[in-house]
Amino acid sequence: MDISTYYGSIFLENSILFFLDLFDTIVSTTHLVMKRKKRNDMQSFPTIIQYRHIHLSSVDHVLLFGENVKGTTLRKLGQKEQVVFQEMVEIIGKNGVILKAHVLGPERDKTQVELSATEAFALGINAPLRVSGDSDHSASCILKGPKGEVQAKMCVIIPVRHLHLPPRLAKKYNLEQGSIISLQTVQHPFQEIDQVIVRIHPTFRPEFHLTFDEASTFWLQTGDAVHLL
Amino acid sequence: MDISTYYGSIFLENSILFFLDLFDTIVSTTHLVMKRKKRNDMQSFPTIIQYRHIHLSSVDHVLLFGENVKGTTLRKLGQKEQVVFQEMVEIIGKNGVILKAHVLGPERDKTQVELSATEAFALGINAPLRVSGDSDHSASCILKGPKGEVQAKMCVIIPVRHLHLPPRLAKKYNLEQGSIISLQTVQHPFQEIDQVIVRIHPTFRPEFHLTFDEASTFWLQTGDAVHLL
Repeated sequence: MDISTYYGSIFLENSILFFLDLFDTIVSTTHLVMKRKKRNDMQSFPTIIQYRHIHLSSVDHVLLFGENVKGTTLRKLGQKEQVVFQEMVEIIGKNGVILKAHVLGPERDKTQVELSATEAFALGINAPLRVSGDSDHSASCILKGPKGEVQAKMCVIIPVRHLHLPPRLAKKYNLEQGSIISLQTVQHPFQEIDQVIVRIHPTFRPEFHLTFDEASTFWLQTGDAVHLL
Repeated sequence: MDISTYYGSIFLENSILFFLDLFDTIVSTTHLVMKRKKRNDMQSFPTIIQYRHIHLSSVDHVLLFGENVKGTTLRKLGQKEQVVFQEMVEIIGKNGVILKAHVLGPERDKTQVELSATEAFALGINAPLRVSGDSDHSASCILKGPKGEVQAKMCVIIPVRHLHLPPRLAKKYNLEQGSIISLQTVQHPFQEIDQVIVRIHPTFRPEFHLTFDEASTFWLQTGDAVHLL
């Protein structure tokens, strides 16, 4: 596997250990290997670019925005009940740079910050590449809202590119939770996008999610179709 | 004007001078003020996210790729004859990070590298915010291709968000080259996108271009409609 290709296109020459850590993470979080039947059909999925964003716990939401302050929905997302709030939070790392990111709803049990590799590097945050929800031993940062600040520990990840599928489609393609698959762009010359992790849930719409870093590399825009290879 | 809003969402706390420089650039490159009639129509334009990319001079193309090596078209862009080549070049700044960027065609008289603010910061390149083509006293970097390396001087900019218009539409809206306008998203709650520069050319399709940094802030995706305010 070419880790540089996998990781979008950012090469941290001075941070070999960072890459090794990413590689370990990929291996440990993707324990199931692709076991698919040969298919003749060409199911295609829309690409969605994942912007940097923050999922907040209810405790952290109160600390950042105050008591009884509800988010204003800016956009609905493709995944059930997920929304982008108009409200933004400042993310502060070690580099004297602040990036603002939108808060997503609904609230989660645990606060999680999702960044692209370039954003993490610019902020000075050594974030691991992870499946969303898996933030054990991930990176820390400071979050700042209009009402307060939070020392957010073990919450920053770079989300692994992934394909959302409902169980019906996963079954049709013989894919399991955590399967690693390859996708292909539909426009000639075709580009192969390997190391895509399958995530299955009854509420999921079939969508391919990747960070803008990776989107830049493949020059994919939201809505572009990709299909199973 | 709130420079932080204008500049997407990156605050370089340690680089106030950097921001003042950006502000000067905006003022100096946008000498024409918006003079528009009141309109009742709601012309809308599609949003296009500008990924990092490189325009190469023919001399630099040979230095990076070798003699008689032509680019392979990966995608056609909305603007006439512009294409994204499959080939990528490494951009090297002062921070030990390398970002790969696609080369765009056709070749230009002068090499130009266009980055988002976050990418420039991650690379350690103090790039000014400029209208494409205006790279006087802009930042420098090293470009590395499969055949060689180029010390690319005064070529790195952060492209100012802009609205492309053909002369016919510009006349209809009473807009001139360099007019500064405000756009609005069409989805409620409406977001105002101010400080958008108008660029007019007979080959231009009406499109609103912005970097991913700004796109993250407004949570705009390629294809989303915006209209004149």
